[in-house]
Amino acid sequence: MADHPANGLDDVVHQRVRLGIMAIAHQARQVEFGFLRTTLQLTAGNLGQHLTVLEKAELIQIEKGYEGKRPRTWVTLTAAGQAALRDEIAHLKQLIQQVEQTETPPTADQ
Amino acid sequence: MADHPANGLDDVVHQRVRLGIMAIAHQARQVEFGFLRTTLQLTAGNLGQHLTVLEKAELIQIEKGYEGKRPRTWVTLTAAGQAALRDEIAHLKQLIQQVEQTETPPTADQ
Repeated sequence: MADHPANGLDDVVHQRVRLGIMAIAHQARQVEFGFLRTTLQLTAGNLGQHLTVLEKAELIQIEKGYEGKRPRTWVTLTAAGQAALRDEIAHLKQLIQQVEQTETPPTADQ
Repeated sequence: MADHPANGLDDVVHQRVRLGIMAIAHQARQVEFGFLRTTLQLTAGNLGQHLTVLEKAELIQIEKGYEGKRPRTWVTLTAAGQAALRDEIAHLKQLIQQVEQTETPPTADQ
């Protein structure tokens, strides 16, 4: 287990909210701030902070514009973001496979 | 996507190092502190902090003892810990499935 799959997970991508943002951006191709906020049940401030982390890591691109007169913020994965999401999922699958090939052992309190 | 699988992930379990600890404890049934530290490439302090979080959440049981004259700390999942790991994995599989059923879209910088 020297190279445990958990060691291959990147905290920038693995963090629960950011993994959600990246998964949704992947599925939706381009996703609007308000949609992310509702879907991931976040405050605007919290979502904004996580988007900043992903943008600084160059995993997403943020575009600001208008839909009619309403200001809109659009989020798209970069090529590096797609690669990072693929990498995260590859490591998660390895970890899941390792867990699932072990039968549930007796627990401490049984 | 109102009930996005990322919303079902529990930060206590999902955090990279703690997910690694729980996966290894599941696989090894009972695992020694030094083995976790080496496998997950952690300092003793960092591992200790994550074990405390998992113990406070009642997901692991920690036992201290001796192997010969050497002090040893053993980690075992509780029944709640097994359930939490199963839950985490179920949500991850859902998220992975949603991502994988979407073809890789064009990225922001292509």
